[in-house]
Amino acid sequence: MDIKEVKKNAREKMKGFCNVCNECNGIWCAGKVPGMGGCGTGDSFKRNYNKLKRIRLILKTIHSAKNPILETSLWGEKLSFPGIIAPITGASYNFGNAVNEKEYANNVINGAVDAGTIGMVGDGGDPTYLELGLKAIKKAGGKGVAIIKPRDNEEIIKRIKMAEEAGAVAVGIDIDGAGLLTMALYNQPVGPKSFKDLKTLVDSTDLPFIVKGILSVEEAKLCQRAGVDTIVVSNHGGRVLDDTLAPCEVLNEIVKEVGYKVNILVDGAARNGGDILKYLALGAKGVLIGRPIIWGAVGGGQEGVKIILEQFKNELYKNMILTGCEETTNISPRIIHEFILD
Amino acid sequence: MDIKEVKKNAREKMKGFCNVCNECNGIWCAGKVPGMGGCGTGDSFKRNYNKLKRIRLILKTIHSAKNPILETSLWGEKLSFPGIIAPITGASYNFGNAVNEKEYANNVINGAVDAGTIGMVGDGGDPTYLELGLKAIKKAGGKGVAIIKPRDNEEIIKRIKMAEEAGAVAVGIDIDGAGLLTMALYNQPVGPKSFKDLKTLVDSTDLPFIVKGILSVEEAKLCQRAGVDTIVVSNHGGRVLDDTLAPCEVLNEIVKEVGYKVNILVDGAARNGGDILKYLALGAKGVLIGRPIIWGAVGGGQEGVKIILEQFKNELYKNMILTGCEETTNISPRIIHEFILD
Amino acid sequence: MDIKEVKKNAREKMKGFCNVCNECNGIWCAGKVPGMGGCGTGDSFKRNYNKLKRIRLILKTIHSAKNPILETSLWGEKLSFPGIIAPITGASYNFGNAVNEKEYANNVINGAVDAGTIGMVGDGGDPTYLELGLKAIKKAGGKGVAIIKPRDNEEIIKRIKMAEEAGAVAVGIDIDGAGLLTMALYNQPVGPKSFKDLKTLVDSTDLPFIVKGILSVEEAKLCQRAGVDTIVVSNHGGRVLDDTLAPCEVLNEIVKEVGYKVNILVDGAARNGGDILKYLALGAKGVLIGRPIIWGAVGGGQEGVKIILEQFKNELYKNMILTGCEETTNISPRIIHEFILD
Amino acid sequence: MDIKEVKKNAREKMKGFCNVCNECNGIWCAGKVPGMGGCGTGDSFKRNYNKLKRIRLILKTIHSAKNPILETSLWGEKLSFPGIIAPITGASYNFGNAVNEKEYANNVINGAVDAGTIGMVGDGGDPTYLELGLKAIKKAGGKGVAIIKPRDNEEIIKRIKMAEEAGAVAVGIDIDGAGLLTMALYNQPVGPKSFKDLKTLVDSTDLPFIVKGILSVEEAKLCQRAGVDTIVVSNHGGRVLDDTLAPCEVLNEIVKEVGYKVNILVDGAARNGGDILKYLALGAKGVLIGRPIIWGAVGGGQEGVKIILEQFKNELYKNMILTGCEETTNISPRIIHEFILD
Repeated sequence: MDIKEVKKNAREKMKGFCNVCNECNGIWCAGKVPGMGGCGTGDSFKRNYNKLKRIRLILKTIHSAKNPILETSLWGEKLSFPGIIAPITGASYNFGNAVNEKEYANNVINGAVDAGTIGMVGDGGDPTYLELGLKAIKKAGGKGVAIIKPRDNEEIIKRIKMAEEAGAVAVGIDIDGAGLLTMALYNQPVGPKSFKDLKTLVDSTDLPFIVKGILSVEEAKLCQRAGVDTIVVSNHGGRVLDDTLAPCEVLNEIVKEVGYKVNILVDGAARNGGDILKYLALGAKGVLIGRPIIWGAVGGGQEGVKIILEQFKNELYKNMILTGCEETTNISPRIIHEFILD
Repeated sequence: MDIKEVKKNAREKMKGFCNVCNECNGIWCAGKVPGMGGCGTGDSFKRNYNKLKRIRLILKTIHSAKNPILETSLWGEKLSFPGIIAPITGASYNFGNAVNEKEYANNVINGAVDAGTIGMVGDGGDPTYLELGLKAIKKAGGKGVAIIKPRDNEEIIKRIKMAEEAGAVAVGIDIDGAGLLTMALYNQPVGPKSFKDLKTLVDSTDLPFIVKGILSVEEAKLCQRAGVDTIVVSNHGGRVLDDTLAPCEVLNEIVKEVGYKVNILVDGAARNGGDILKYLALGAKGVLIGRPIIWGAVGGGQEGVKIILEQFKNELYKNMILTGCEETTNISPRIIHEFILD
Repeated sequence: MDIKEVKKNAREKMKGFCNVCNECNGIWCAGKVPGMGGCGTGDSFKRNYNKLKRIRLILKTIHSAKNPILETSLWGEKLSFPGIIAPITGASYNFGNAVNEKEYANNVINGAVDAGTIGMVGDGGDPTYLELGLKAIKKAGGKGVAIIKPRDNEEIIKRIKMAEEAGAVAVGIDIDGAGLLTMALYNQPVGPKSFKDLKTLVDSTDLPFIVKGILSVEEAKLCQRAGVDTIVVSNHGGRVLDDTLAPCEVLNEIVKEVGYKVNILVDGAARNGGDILKYLALGAKGVLIGRPIIWGAVGGGQEGVKIILEQFKNELYKNMILTGCEETTNISPRIIHEFILD
Repeated sequence: MDIKEVKKNAREKMKGFCNVCNECNGIWCAGKVPGMGGCGTGDSFKRNYNKLKRIRLILKTIHSAKNPILETSLWGEKLSFPGIIAPITGASYNFGNAVNEKEYANNVINGAVDAGTIGMVGDGGDPTYLELGLKAIKKAGGKGVAIIKPRDNEEIIKRIKMAEEAGAVAVGIDIDGAGLLTMALYNQPVGPKSFKDLKTLVDSTDLPFIVKGILSVEEAKLCQRAGVDTIVVSNHGGRVLDDTLAPCEVLNEIVKEVGYKVNILVDGAARNGGDILKYLALGAKGVLIGRPIIWGAVGGGQEGVKIILEQFKNELYKNMILTGCEETTNISPRIIHEFILD
C-alpha cells in the first residue's frame, strides 16, 4: 500500500463526505458540519488553509544540513517528529462510518505508535466515544492523549480519572467546543469555562493538562496563570465559529508572550511536511494533523495512518534540507517570509 | 417546517428570480433589478457581503457568558433581539409574485411579532403597496414601521399621517430611493431632499423619524441636526447605485460621530446571527434583515418569517457564547478584528 | 429600438469577435488583437476595467442637486455631456465587418451629432480608413475629430491638411500606435516621436492638437511644452502593450501637473455613466467611449450609436443626483473614494 | 512553420503532460512533477508567473528609441538578445518523450545558435542525459553551457572536465536540485553544498562557474565570496519546493548587493519579450527561457526552438520602443512600476 492507494480508497469510501481534493482547502466541503467541512460558509477552515499557504519558505542550499534530525519530545515522550494526531470523533456522521468509531480510535493510536509519535482521542455527544478512545490508549500501553469536551467540571474530572486509569500521557479539554449547543439535547451540556473553573480542572490531576482551542494572547495568558501545561492554538478546524482568525495568524504572538512557560502546539490545515516546518518556524513545539489522518484511517486503517505520518516525515526532511534546518527543535524564524495579514 | 424546508420551498418558488445560494453574495443575481440582485454589475451588493464577511470574530471561551441576553429596545418597543425586518415591496417584479404584495406585508409584520421583534413596510411605484403595509401594521396593533419613498414633501407628509393612523411605532423615508427615476413615469416623482426639506418632514410628526440610506458621516450629521431619531446606514441592498462603499465600511465612523444622539441601525447583507454580532460590535443598535426574510415569507409564509428570525437568534446566542458577550446592548468592539478597507 | 435590442443584435453580428458580455472586462476576448480584446494576456485591458471599477462613489441624497446639468464644451464646441466617441478603425478584422468601414465612420460621426456630442475617426494600415472618416466629418459639417497614426511627420502633416479641409474641429495623433510594427509591412511605417517631431506637428496647424496615448506625468509635461491642446490619457484599450498601468491610475497625477494648461481627456473601459462620473471626479474634462459605441454601430447603426450615448447620459444624470453633483464642469473629487493602487 | 503551428503541434504531442495554455501560469499542470508543473500545490510555479505579471511597464512614446539594440554578451560570447535557454532533461517522464532526450538536446543547442544566442543542457537521475547534452554542445563547436546536479563534489568535477572537453562556454550546478531525494535511489545522490564544497568546485575549473537556484541575498553573497562567475536567481521552475518566493521578488535586492561583481541571470516564468524586459529592468543581465522552448522543440524541432526565440526578440524589440529603451545592456529601472510584494 502506498499513499496514492490510501487516498484513492479514502475518496471512494468517503463519497459525499470528503472529496480528498488535491488541495484540501475547505471549498468542496464548505458548511458540511456534521461532515468534513467548516461550519457556516466554511470561511474559518478556508482561512486556516489560505493563510498558512501564503507563508513563504526561503529556499537555501549552501549549508551543511545534509541529514536533518526530526526527533523531538513532549510530555516526557520521545517523538519521531513533531507531528501529533488531532482528536477526532463522530465517525458515523462526520465521515459516513467508512470506519467505525472503535476502529478509528485504534487506527489512530496504533498508527501513531507505529510511526514513532502519538495520537489524541476525543469526546462527543455520545459518551461511548471517549471510552473507546481510552480503551485504545490503554491497549497501547498508555501511548495517547485524551481530549474531553468542555462539560460541567465534575463530568470532566470523572473523565480525567478515566484517562489516568488508561495510562494516558496527558489529558485536556477542547474548550472551543463550548458552542456545541446540540450536546445539551443529548443531556451532555457544554459551555465556556471561567478562570476558576479552568484552574480547578488543572489542579485535579497530576497529568500534563492541555487546553485546545486558544486563539488569542489574552486567553493564552489565562491558561498560563491557571497552570496549563500545553496550549493548542486552534479554531477547531473551522467547525465551531464562522469567520475566525486562523491559527497561523495568532500563533507567533502567543509564543512570544507565553511560550517560555507553556508548551504551544498548533492545529490547523497542516497538509504536508512543509506546513509542519512553517508552524515550527512560527514557534510551535508540535503540530496536530487532522483531516489527512482520517484519509489514512479510512483508506488504509492502522497502516494508512502510518503511511500518512511517514509521508509528512519525508516531506519535512526534504524541506529541512532545502531551507537549511538541522533540527526540528531549533528552527529559525528566518526560514519563512510571512504574508499572513491581509 | 424547518429552515431547510423553508429554503427549499423558496428556491423552487423563486426560480429565475433568486437561487437561494449557499452564500447569498450577489453573484448569481448580479444586475437583476427588478429582481433580487444589485443594480449594474451588482458590485455594491457584492461588496456589502464581502466586506462584512472579511471582519473576523475573536473566538473566546474562557469567561462567564454562559447565558447571553439577546433582548434590546427601540422606539419604546422591547425586541427579543436586535434584528428588524427591512422594508421591501414589489413582490410581483422582484420575486415573481411567489407571494403577493398583501401576503408579503402580513407575513413580515406578523412573523416579526411572533418572533418578538418588529418589521418595516415599504413604499413603491404603485401607491397601494404602502397602503397594504399600513393595513398589516394596523391589524397587528401598530407593531410595525413605515418607510416612505422620497416623494415630494406633501406626498410624504400625507403618508406619515396614514402611518400615524395605523398606529405605527415609527416612520421614515428611504432617502436613497432618490434615484428611482422610473417612479416619475408612474406620476410618483422622487428625488433628493435638502436639509430644509428633511427638517420639515421630521417636524411634521411626533413619531420617531427614520432616515434610511445614509453612507457618510457628513449626511449623518445633517440628519442629527434635522432632529432625525434613527439613521439606517444602508446602500439600499446595492440596488440604487453601482460601486458604492459597503455599510460596514462607514458604520463605525458614523457611530463615533453621532451615535451618542441618534439611533444607528444598519442594513446590508446580514445573513446570520454572526453578521448581527459583527454589526453590533461596530456600534449599531440594530440590524435590518432583508433577503433571508423574503425566503422565509415565500418559503413558509408567516411561520417561515418566524423560523428565519429564530435561526438568527440561535446563531447570535451561540456566537455570543463563543466570543464572551453577555448582552446585545453592550457588545465590545474588541470581539472583532477588522479587515474592511482594501 | 432600445438598448437591449441593440446589444442583442450586436452579440449576434459580432459572434466570435465580441461576446458583448454583461461585464465588458477583457476576459472573454483576452489576446484577440486583431479583434476586440487586449493584446497578449489582455492584462492592460482587464486592468483598465478592474481599477476603474474599484473606485467607489460616495452615495449622497441630502442636497439640492435635483436637476443636474450635463452640458460641457471642448474645442469651442458645445457638448450635451462630456462623452466623446473614441477613434476606431479596422471594421473587417476587428469586428468581422458586421458593419463596413464606411458605415462605421458615418454611424459614429452622425450618431454623436444626434446625441449632441462629437466623435473621433481613426487611421490604420489601410490609408483609405482615415479618408472615409474625414468624408464622414465633412458630410457632418465638420463635426468630428481626426486622429492620425504616428507616421513619418510629413505623412502626418499631409493628413492634418486633409482634416483641415474636411473642417474637423480638432486633429491629433494616437502616439501609442508607435509599436504597430505590422504597419511597416503595408509601407505605412509608424514609430515614436521625439519632442522636436511633436513640436513640428503642433506647429503645423491652427487646429487644436491632440496627443492620445499618454500614461505618465513625464510625457504629459513634454506635451504641454510642445504646445499640445489636449492630452488623452490612454493605453489604447490595452491593445498595444501588455501589462501597462491603467489610465485611472495616472490620470489624477497628470491633471494636477498640467491640467491647468492642457485639456485632459481619458480613454479606458468607460462602460456607463458612472464611469464617466468617476473620471470627471479624477479631473478629466471628457471621456472617450470605445467598445460600447461599436455595439451601438453594429447593433443599431447611427440610431444605435445615439441610443448608447443617451444611455450614458441617463446614467450620468441619475448618478449625479445620487452623489449630489450639480454640473459636469464642476465635479468634486470628494464624490469618490479611491482604491486604485494595489 | 510559424509560432501558431509550433504551439498547435506541441499541444497535440504533449497531451496529458502540457496543455500549452494561453496563459502558462501553472494552474493546469499543478503538482505534475514529473511532468511540466510545479511540485506540491504548484504554488511556487504559479507565484513565479503571477508576481512577474503584476509588474507594470510604463508606456512611453515621446522619445528617440526608434531602433532599439538587443545584442549583449555573456562569458565572452556575443548574444543576439539576452535570452538563454534553460537546462532541461527528462524528456520521457517530463513531456512524454514527444521528442527524445538526444533530439531535445540537439534542438536546444542548435536552435539557440540559429537564433544567435546560447543554450544550457542539464543533468538528471540517468547519467546519460548530461552526456547527450555535452555531445550536442561539442557538435556545435562548444556553443553551450553545462549545468550539473549537486552530486558529490568528485562526481561534479568529473563532469566539469567532460564539459571542458566538449568545449562548453561555461559550466555550473543547479544547487536547488539538493532536495531530489529520488536521485539517491538511482545511486546518484545529491545534496546541499557547504561554502567550502562550493569553493572547491569553483576552483576546479577555469571556465566561468554558474550557480543556478539562488533565492536570497545571503546565499548570493556566499556565491560571490566563493568566486562564482554567474548566479541564476531561480526556484527551479517551482519544481523542488512548494511555497517559495518568486525570483522577481528577490532579484533586484540581489543585484544591488552583488551585481557589481557577479553576473546575475534570472529564471522564472519568462513567457514573452515583455517578461525579458521586466527582468532586465530589475537588473538581470540575461533571462533563462524554459517551458516555451520545450514547446518549440516538441512542436517544431530545431526550427521550432528558433521560432520561439525570434518571437521573444520581436516582442522585446517592440516593447523597448514602447518604453523608450535604446539598448538591452542599459535598461532603466524606471520603465517598470513594481507591484511585487503582497
